[in-house]
Amino acid sequence: MALGANQHHYVARVMRLGQGDGVRLFNGRDGEWLALLDGAQAVCSERLKVQPAGNGPWLLFAPPKRDRLRFLVEKATELGVGRLMPVTTERTEPPVVKTGKMRDWVQEAAEQCGRCDLPECAEQTSLQDVLETWPDDRSLLLCDETGAGKPLDQAMAAPMAFLVGPEGGFTPQEFDRLRGHEMVVPVSLGSHILRIETACLAALASWHLRSSGASVEDTSRGAPTS
Amino acid sequence: MALGANQHHYVARVMRLGQGDGVRLFNGRDGEWLALLDGAQAVCSERLKVQPAGNGPWLLFAPPKRDRLRFLVEKATELGVGRLMPVTTERTEPPVVKTGKMRDWVQEAAEQCGRCDLPECAEQTSLQDVLETWPDDRSLLLCDETGAGKPLDQAMAAPMAFLVGPEGGFTPQEFDRLRGHEMVVPVSLGSHILRIETACLAALASWHLRSSGASVEDTSRGAPTS
Repeated sequence: MALGANQHHYVARVMRLGQGDGVRLFNGRDGEWLALLDGAQAVCSERLKVQPAGNGPWLLFAPPKRDRLRFLVEKATELGVGRLMPVTTERTEPPVVKTGKMRDWVQEAAEQCGRCDLPECAEQTSLQDVLETWPDDRSLLLCDETGAGKPLDQAMAAPMAFLVGPEGGFTPQEFDRLRGHEMVVPVSLGSHILRIETACLAALASWHLRSSGASVEDTSRGAPTS
Repeated sequence: MALGANQHHYVARVMRLGQGDGVRLFNGRDGEWLALLDGAQAVCSERLKVQPAGNGPWLLFAPPKRDRLRFLVEKATELGVGRLMPVTTERTEPPVVKTGKMRDWVQEAAEQCGRCDLPECAEQTSLQDVLETWPDDRSLLLCDETGAGKPLDQAMAAPMAFLVGPEGGFTPQEFDRLRGHEMVVPVSLGSHILRIETACLAALASWHLRSSGASVEDTSRGAPTS
């Protein structure tokens, strides 16, 4: 494949690699490959990892402001999120998340952490629209600050998604609407009031440790493939 | 008590509170109190929360650079860390963490999340010195990127501390030295290579969910006190 201008700059100038040197490539479909540089081309020579099944949880979140958003996207990628879905709720503050920016951050984080697939980045959508088009087979774990939800561990089951509301929480009307959907399961993240990005990361970290066999309950699911 | 200049500014100008209005106070010893404003004084009137036992895990970490450090400190406070201990390892990059700065971030985060105690902030110390003065009764969970450690859930037991190494990891010599100590337990955080702050937060989130009764194993520990 031909390297893009940014990639070529990074490889040649930052990494100082040249003719015949090896780089690791992934495209989110074919696993991870060792490729050898040949001018502005990288020629695949050996497959290093098979593509993992992309079954990370989806994350629906009322977007926090800029630095926190970037951090959230980066950490969620490191922790194995499957799809990032910014949602607009009644108390969500503008502006709307730029999907292109989010894709850049996701790519950088995936390269950094050795993940060879990219989470999908959805356009920001209203909570209402998300609920109306929700797939039947996926549960939606509503991170509930009131502490009234189920223990998180009990509620986790693939396929699933986490939903984290804005600072100030969902309105009572939104709560009622959410609870009216069969796939919505309120879960508790403990007694402190966590910021948006902290709640997102706590939920994902808990899933990550389970699914990587880093938690006791899941050693039956087998070792990580890498 | 008399409000400090910053606190008074915040209360009077940012929150726009005046004579007789209520604020919530905590000092890390006596729980959380409702206090009524009287000029530049706040007079305690009613105790809202008893002081929780300060048994959050300690966090030892090779400090990441500025923004990531601030984020780490803030999130760790939200997730209930008991003591923040920056450590210098062979591959830790300068500069040294400013303890005063860390205290400011900790206080802000504690106020934000409704936590009524403050984690201690230790001066940055060499890993060597930390190990030599380690208390006998506290286990040190070494977050081990090689994936060879125990499942995290199996290793958690109070009192404990998490130790997260620098980008690039511990040197083989440091690993050997660590493994030579009886209180050190290598634990796995899964298959991705997590950045310093992500590893710290994943470990703390896992503890937080357990200890808040937000995880199945710990419902026996009772509900949060708030």
